[in-house]
Amino acid sequence: MCGIFGYIGKGEASKITAMGLFMLQHRGQESCGIAVSNGKKIKLIKELGYVKEVFYEERVDELDGFAAIGHVRYPTRGKPTIENSQPHLIETLSGPAYAFASNGDVVNYKMLREKYEGKGVFFHSDNDGELIGRMLVYKVERENKSTEDAVEEIMEEVKGAFSALFMTKDRIYAFRDPFGFRPMIFGKTEDGLAIASESVAMDILRIKNWREVEPAELLILTKNGARDVKFNGEKLRKRKETAHCSFEIIYFARPDSYQYHQFVHDKRVLLGEKLAEKDNVEADAVVPVPDSSNFMALGYSRKRRIPLCFGLIRSHYIGRTFITPSQSVRDESVRQKFNPLYRFFHEKRIILVDDSIVRGTTIRKIVRMIKGAGAKEVHVRIASPPVKFPCRYGIDTPTFEELIANRMTVEEIRKFIEADSLLYLTVDELKEVLDSPQDFCYACFNGEYPILEKE
Amino acid sequence: MCGIFGYIGKGEASKITAMGLFMLQHRGQESCGIAVSNGKKIKLIKELGYVKEVFYEERVDELDGFAAIGHVRYPTRGKPTIENSQPHLIETLSGPAYAFASNGDVVNYKMLREKYEGKGVFFHSDNDGELIGRMLVYKVERENKSTEDAVEEIMEEVKGAFSALFMTKDRIYAFRDPFGFRPMIFGKTEDGLAIASESVAMDILRIKNWREVEPAELLILTKNGARDVKFNGEKLRKRKETAHCSFEIIYFARPDSYQYHQFVHDKRVLLGEKLAEKDNVEADAVVPVPDSSNFMALGYSRKRRIPLCFGLIRSHYIGRTFITPSQSVRDESVRQKFNPLYRFFHEKRIILVDDSIVRGTTIRKIVRMIKGAGAKEVHVRIASPPVKFPCRYGIDTPTFEELIANRMTVEEIRKFIEADSLLYLTVDELKEVLDSPQDFCYACFNGEYPILEKE
Amino acid sequence: MCGIFGYIGKGEASKITAMGLFMLQHRGQESCGIAVSNGKKIKLIKELGYVKEVFYEERVDELDGFAAIGHVRYPTRGKPTIENSQPHLIETLSGPAYAFASNGDVVNYKMLREKYEGKGVFFHSDNDGELIGRMLVYKVERENKSTEDAVEEIMEEVKGAFSALFMTKDRIYAFRDPFGFRPMIFGKTEDGLAIASESVAMDILRIKNWREVEPAELLILTKNGARDVKFNGEKLRKRKETAHCSFEIIYFARPDSYQYHQFVHDKRVLLGEKLAEKDNVEADAVVPVPDSSNFMALGYSRKRRIPLCFGLIRSHYIGRTFITPSQSVRDESVRQKFNPLYRFFHEKRIILVDDSIVRGTTIRKIVRMIKGAGAKEVHVRIASPPVKFPCRYGIDTPTFEELIANRMTVEEIRKFIEADSLLYLTVDELKEVLDSPQDFCYACFNGEYPILEKE
Amino acid sequence: MCGIFGYIGKGEASKITAMGLFMLQHRGQESCGIAVSNGKKIKLIKELGYVKEVFYEERVDELDGFAAIGHVRYPTRGKPTIENSQPHLIETLSGPAYAFASNGDVVNYKMLREKYEGKGVFFHSDNDGELIGRMLVYKVERENKSTEDAVEEIMEEVKGAFSALFMTKDRIYAFRDPFGFRPMIFGKTEDGLAIASESVAMDILRIKNWREVEPAELLILTKNGARDVKFNGEKLRKRKETAHCSFEIIYFARPDSYQYHQFVHDKRVLLGEKLAEKDNVEADAVVPVPDSSNFMALGYSRKRRIPLCFGLIRSHYIGRTFITPSQSVRDESVRQKFNPLYRFFHEKRIILVDDSIVRGTTIRKIVRMIKGAGAKEVHVRIASPPVKFPCRYGIDTPTFEELIANRMTVEEIRKFIEADSLLYLTVDELKEVLDSPQDFCYACFNGEYPILEKE
Repeated sequence: MCGIFGYIGKGEASKITAMGLFMLQHRGQESCGIAVSNGKKIKLIKELGYVKEVFYEERVDELDGFAAIGHVRYPTRGKPTIENSQPHLIETLSGPAYAFASNGDVVNYKMLREKYEGKGVFFHSDNDGELIGRMLVYKVERENKSTEDAVEEIMEEVKGAFSALFMTKDRIYAFRDPFGFRPMIFGKTEDGLAIASESVAMDILRIKNWREVEPAELLILTKNGARDVKFNGEKLRKRKETAHCSFEIIYFARPDSYQYHQFVHDKRVLLGEKLAEKDNVEADAVVPVPDSSNFMALGYSRKRRIPLCFGLIRSHYIGRTFITPSQSVRDESVRQKFNPLYRFFHEKRIILVDDSIVRGTTIRKIVRMIKGAGAKEVHVRIASPPVKFPCRYGIDTPTFEELIANRMTVEEIRKFIEADSLLYLTVDELKEVLDSPQDFCYACFNGEYPILEKE
Repeated sequence: MCGIFGYIGKGEASKITAMGLFMLQHRGQESCGIAVSNGKKIKLIKELGYVKEVFYEERVDELDGFAAIGHVRYPTRGKPTIENSQPHLIETLSGPAYAFASNGDVVNYKMLREKYEGKGVFFHSDNDGELIGRMLVYKVERENKSTEDAVEEIMEEVKGAFSALFMTKDRIYAFRDPFGFRPMIFGKTEDGLAIASESVAMDILRIKNWREVEPAELLILTKNGARDVKFNGEKLRKRKETAHCSFEIIYFARPDSYQYHQFVHDKRVLLGEKLAEKDNVEADAVVPVPDSSNFMALGYSRKRRIPLCFGLIRSHYIGRTFITPSQSVRDESVRQKFNPLYRFFHEKRIILVDDSIVRGTTIRKIVRMIKGAGAKEVHVRIASPPVKFPCRYGIDTPTFEELIANRMTVEEIRKFIEADSLLYLTVDELKEVLDSPQDFCYACFNGEYPILEKE
Repeated sequence: MCGIFGYIGKGEASKITAMGLFMLQHRGQESCGIAVSNGKKIKLIKELGYVKEVFYEERVDELDGFAAIGHVRYPTRGKPTIENSQPHLIETLSGPAYAFASNGDVVNYKMLREKYEGKGVFFHSDNDGELIGRMLVYKVERENKSTEDAVEEIMEEVKGAFSALFMTKDRIYAFRDPFGFRPMIFGKTEDGLAIASESVAMDILRIKNWREVEPAELLILTKNGARDVKFNGEKLRKRKETAHCSFEIIYFARPDSYQYHQFVHDKRVLLGEKLAEKDNVEADAVVPVPDSSNFMALGYSRKRRIPLCFGLIRSHYIGRTFITPSQSVRDESVRQKFNPLYRFFHEKRIILVDDSIVRGTTIRKIVRMIKGAGAKEVHVRIASPPVKFPCRYGIDTPTFEELIANRMTVEEIRKFIEADSLLYLTVDELKEVLDSPQDFCYACFNGEYPILEKE
Repeated sequence: MCGIFGYIGKGEASKITAMGLFMLQHRGQESCGIAVSNGKKIKLIKELGYVKEVFYEERVDELDGFAAIGHVRYPTRGKPTIENSQPHLIETLSGPAYAFASNGDVVNYKMLREKYEGKGVFFHSDNDGELIGRMLVYKVERENKSTEDAVEEIMEEVKGAFSALFMTKDRIYAFRDPFGFRPMIFGKTEDGLAIASESVAMDILRIKNWREVEPAELLILTKNGARDVKFNGEKLRKRKETAHCSFEIIYFARPDSYQYHQFVHDKRVLLGEKLAEKDNVEADAVVPVPDSSNFMALGYSRKRRIPLCFGLIRSHYIGRTFITPSQSVRDESVRQKFNPLYRFFHEKRIILVDDSIVRGTTIRKIVRMIKGAGAKEVHVRIASPPVKFPCRYGIDTPTFEELIANRMTVEEIRKFIEADSLLYLTVDELKEVLDSPQDFCYACFNGEYPILEKE
């Protein structure tokens, strides 16, 4: 999972892009980068670290230009190195004249890489973004194709998810794969044009009239405005329906974002309500695992009229787990992140709401911690279906073996996490909550992959 | 406002201290430091930055020893320099043999500094912690007093707030001023003894039987156990009552902490309820300014049966304000921190709950932002009395002139912050919520300073 | 003035190149760089600083490969930036597949740069080496010419001095301009082939049977051996004679080098003798300005049987001038470099031998310093003719106006430098000392430039 | 071996000290440091590295004050760490109020360290300079002695060599051990007073009327002038004669220095002449090992009327040995430093003059290199006696076992170094050259140590 942002317009392109990336920080904390064009050449800064640490004022000031694209990375394909970070700056005899950034994952990466290496193209990284970027430059510089044609060929050749930005010295090409796996928003400021992974990044720019970039759509952004090219998505994906990522709605997106034509927080409240509807366990309090399941817990609490309580206090200063002395509490890695209210849980029957269970280890630690704090019963409620299959389109889920729901029944999971009861949503219940449910991908829940490597 | 942590026992003292400071990070983000003793000399590392950035594993490993004291700093007296950071390492011909860290503020700093400079004592910083530390060493090394006697003299000479840790090569002296302004907790692990500003730092160490260090109490901690000295608090403070900081309960402490013999989150729920009791404005939703007023909003919502909503999404990645391009939203510094749910506020009447108003500029930006998002009415509810007087005991409140409640009536403040109505608690209502209200300091609300420079 | 070194063979190419550059450090102290190929891609490290500081062991170990080219830079064209440093790594869609380094200066740089920018070639620097390198890549990649043909075209198009190394992934092309301005040596080790600016770099590699690369010669070096291409030098330069730089013999080359078919130190002794032959001033001691005129002073001293004395002690630790407090001696910048023996000069008549006078400011400071040390007379003897014209072929001489001999007669110079007498060699006397004098360039002495921009 | 410099006067003390240290760089290249006082506190900067690298302009500007002491270190006692570098800043409750720097070595270090640790003094390093410095502060601060009395006690208690500078906030105490092992010069500028290890450092400051600080002398330098205290040297050293280091004259001092009442270069010419007087080997050229034996070779050459030749070219860029690829010449570490003139040595009989032989390995490499360059005979002439005993007074000679002359006869050494003949001076011949020879130490040649640990 990653985030992208692009801007072209009057001045300050890199500053606006830094701000946009900052609002997308939740989509990737490993590294970030911005490439900016002043019309003569493209300059790139990318580093491991958070946006606000990498792009402090003086740093952004180095990046003058009217067009910029940026990226925050959450590692999927390739090692956590600067080379594998995005954007990619692509240099030819014409200079540093192209930059590329993408959110997604390429299913037929290996085959395509070998094919283009065979044509003499050199790759600096193992990253799928670099692959698409250099394919485009190859088509344009060596095969003398128009960029529009090159993008259309990419939509045919590249199997997988890509919400992509390709910048030349004077324009930005923004395009999204035919399935529309990952989100992509287009907006207009008074002075320019912007592209972002999520609508929250538009908010900070005073943009109200943004819209989604459609699957199989290409937007050509220049200083003078945007031109729109819509390829035949149905033909390109060989089916009618798109495949929006349902997990974005459940977990990944910020609650204040609009994605796939729906408001994320609304859907999360509904998921909590849906869960409540089929539940009747008696309890004294509903406690969310903060902050990702706050809206789900709120929906559940309201529906069932059991009071919502902030029983777990989340530390704002944790990223990765901090050092852990042997004298500290067992399961201290969870304790550093969440601390239970002292005496609150004493003798209480608790509904603990979370958005999903992947490996099951964290929720087990939380259950234990709550019981250690005196809770009489802990009933775990998950506002999504069991995650049984790895994602192939850009979310860093673990392997089959690591997914607890792949190797255990719900009852076995309940025992493993030491809960008194455990309830999930079904895929059908999830669908009932979403608008246009047929246009979503549920592969991680039901294994129905919309696209595979050998196709 | 700052946080302190100390540990003496079997091994890993600096690791345990780093962990303890991490749990106290909310009390100070400017700088942090740890001094550790291995019995032969004391070593110190302190830096500007967060605990988890400064004290990564390799760094802590450099600090071997069985006793350590640490500090997180929120600047009060002195500039934000490393010299003004704590702990202070005090070196004499006996080597780096003493370290000192304190939470509080010294009222008669100037007079004491001149007095001890006159005795030939050199100060590296303008920090009040260094003052008390070097006064102690002067008394011990130059005047050949016992450390107990020296601490007692400090309790007489030093006017102000200090929850302090003084470490020699083989022991830690923990003591608290006679008024008990700032919190201080003492706990025992299986292997050692710990002191912390708040009880949350004990949680991570599996310590259940902690207790407060009493005002005017001195604890002498060695590898073999603790010895207790209780000075005559009433005589030292020339009055019966202590002066616990009521603002800790309202804002500063973590909600999951226990302070001054009460649970912070309980009191915050009660403050919200107290506010609700005297309110009757009609509204559609109660929205907290996250996360500091979450419990207050919960109490208010429950009492008035108006639904609680998370209408503002807080960014987890902001510390100080990030760079701000001119094209971004006005009041973007608040927008980077809080973003409103899109369409949620539309045509709604909102109860906006916050813990306090200091300058009034932030709440005004939030009110404007919510109205910009379509709210019909915004009623601001503050779960504490107006802050009219600067704190002199360790909280970094601004000057008289900057405190909005010092120069405006409530109605004028309401107009300034552009709210439709504004309601505060009274000091008496605050007192009704606290246990042993006579033992608290309300100086920032009513100007009744328990202790002044010239006394 | 710069130095180049290249090696291809069995392993350790970058280590050998670092060693070679170290021996050429006197030719350029501003920056240094090494590009190395492992057959798949070319890696480059270049930095401001000395060879032994930049290329410490761990650094060189990063540069594995069987072929390498390196450069030490003494700035001529372009600012002292890393971009203007050499070698240049040239990247295309084929990757970082070419590197280029050159010693010399291009007379028609401006015209050629504009011409190739017009063809879409992008330049990262203002350096003439990058110009030739990218011209070669353009001819090979875009015009599909053979590298041999491309080099021959360079010899026609590029006016000026270039002793150049062009590396592809698997070979090194070494070539020298038709005039042979700057030196270039080719040698064979047991395991490989080497190219260097001066023969001293061959000494360290145990290479005895080196030879000069001839003007207009191209050597194609591979792991399997060298192939030789000799272009028609006379036709390319439109005249019979080459134009070796006579200033290399006088000053620039190390005395232990062999250049243009002659031993440098032998020639320097002869220059001193030639000066002595026409001199009859009475004196007590011959003192060289160390170390550059040591051999000249030795020749002078022997011929005139006046004792040689090391009256000036040279500091080994000075590079650029160190900080200078106002209390220190006047002309302290010279004093930091040269210190006179205390009492040695007292009442003595001194013959002060130097290799050349450029601006006249340094020699004046030395004369003053010697007189200040008590010398009765100081007779300055310069073992070369007056430098009246700027070099256009790679030596960083100042402008016309700054050259003292351009605006003053010898007698005026004598007065300016405060010497009791001053004697230079004539150009004819210089020619008498050199072998094949017709093959040398004396433009800086007599203004007869062998090649001009507009030709 | 180390170098010290101190200055007190009107302004720029640290700049003048940096300049002075720069002129003493040959006495120590490992680390350097400057401590400066502005009357209120003492500030110290010390680092590994050369003076001109550590003390660049901006760095020195940080060090404002009117008094400064500095040190360049050549490691003797203790590891090459910053802690063991000098000067030492000594902090007490009075602040960073003392600094100390010394050139020499303490024979009874271990005994004294234990004694003062027993008194509660803490040491940060293993350096003998810190020992003397803290002993002084102990006597002054804890025993309330005057500094004059404290220095006199040091002269009694500390056995060994020390030319020392002790700085308080407002003055510098400069003193020299009773034996006068290491040099120490005192001079007056127009604006202040200076102390230096060698007179060359005075030259740069325009000081002509400097004098030696006498053995057992203490100079108290203030802004208003110097006061002189002469202790009874004969009584303190229990004998009449001092023990100046004869090796300073032979090798260590710069040739342009004046030390122990004699000019170093004059003595070196005489040492070369003395060697010539007793020699009659036939030869074609006298070649010095540059630059340390240049004057010796000059004296030898003149006396025997055999021409002096610069047959070895010394690189100015080598410090420590550079990386060495396996393909390079054997003995390349010497080759990097000295390169023979090509063809010069061919069939010649060479007199190779060097100042001394310690381990014998370098001279062997040079002899081999010269023979490899074609020399018919190489006759090694050493202008000092065989070094058989380690120095205990500040020169970093190796152990007994490593000193070649300790385990081999002259004939065995000759064979080892592969010379055709080898001639040394005798100790008596060395004495004949020195003025007041009875006042010198020859312990490294004859084992007659003037002072031992147990005395």
